[in-house]
Amino acid sequence: MTEKRGERLLVGVVGMPGSGKSIVSDVAREMGFQVVVMGDAVRAEAQRRGLEPTGEAMRNLMLKLRAERGPTVVAELCFPLVDSAGELVLIEGIRSLHEVEAFRERYGRLHLIAVHSSPRTRFKRLIARGRPDDPSDWEEFCKRDEVELSVGIGSAIALADHMLVNEGPVEELREEARELLRRLVEEWRARE
Amino acid sequence: MTEKRGERLLVGVVGMPGSGKSIVSDVAREMGFQVVVMGDAVRAEAQRRGLEPTGEAMRNLMLKLRAERGPTVVAELCFPLVDSAGELVLIEGIRSLHEVEAFRERYGRLHLIAVHSSPRTRFKRLIARGRPDDPSDWEEFCKRDEVELSVGIGSAIALADHMLVNEGPVEELREEARELLRRLVEEWRARE
Repeated sequence: MTEKRGERLLVGVVGMPGSGKSIVSDVAREMGFQVVVMGDAVRAEAQRRGLEPTGEAMRNLMLKLRAERGPTVVAELCFPLVDSAGELVLIEGIRSLHEVEAFRERYGRLHLIAVHSSPRTRFKRLIARGRPDDPSDWEEFCKRDEVELSVGIGSAIALADHMLVNEGPVEELREEARELLRRLVEEWRARE
Repeated sequence: MTEKRGERLLVGVVGMPGSGKSIVSDVAREMGFQVVVMGDAVRAEAQRRGLEPTGEAMRNLMLKLRAERGPTVVAELCFPLVDSAGELVLIEGIRSLHEVEAFRERYGRLHLIAVHSSPRTRFKRLIARGRPDDPSDWEEFCKRDEVELSVGIGSAIALADHMLVNEGPVEELREEARELLRRLVEEWRARE
């Protein structure tokens, strides 16, 4: 059963840890998008397997799932969530071109937004955020980056349709994201 | 013989084909930078080997050199050019984190600037530019992107210290590049 193409506006967000993806998601929610967080699909799978939801366990499970079931496994875990969503859907946390292709194959167009911050900025933010699964030093930070890069996140960033730079205050990114999403919604509504 | 660190301001530019790297180089030249184009090092090597300097031959040679002599070979071909350059040096056409690391190991700090344009914008530009080695259709364009991505250019883009978005008129990118380079020069002159 394939979905009807074009019946939804599908937006994907890709970015390194600490780049500000969730801020784009927040803006999207305020605008009526349903947000599918790809990490949540991994967390749900972890729960089914009785694993602790620590950051490291999640990253290991993500790598294990990919090794076992191929590079589109996390995208596939998200399909039911996208299928049952409304017209406007944002998918947070895309990690590779394989995933981009999987979504495009199933749903037709996917607008890919990359969020970029310099390593230095992301490091400062993650240290300040201090979630249990955030890195506590530069070495851990680099290791976490490496895991993301090993999956091919860089290629997805390189081929993004839109690039949001997040080096300034949060409100600046929020405003840019709002304007971009507003434009995508307008263009989508105006389709034939 | 290692170089004295910090005696130069070293800026690297990474971006997909058609993203606008050479515009950043032009601005840098106007500001007194010496520009080392990494592709020129490959072209010089091709000449030594008696190869035609077509785009495809260059990409094949680049891949061959990497396979033979490792992922930092093109960076190493550029060392003599950087060594003999002045205080302000911009290296255009970095393609991987291996190269970033090679330059950092030899020269200390390298400020990495990524230039980003959407695939659609880059395609339009390359078609309009129509250099002999530019792609003539979408399929060729995608193949050329794939070669770049296979070398790891996406990871270098993902970890760039600065991101310039080039979707608008040329003058906009020029202005942004000028401001960024001016800031880097000022900070570098004010060191210690």
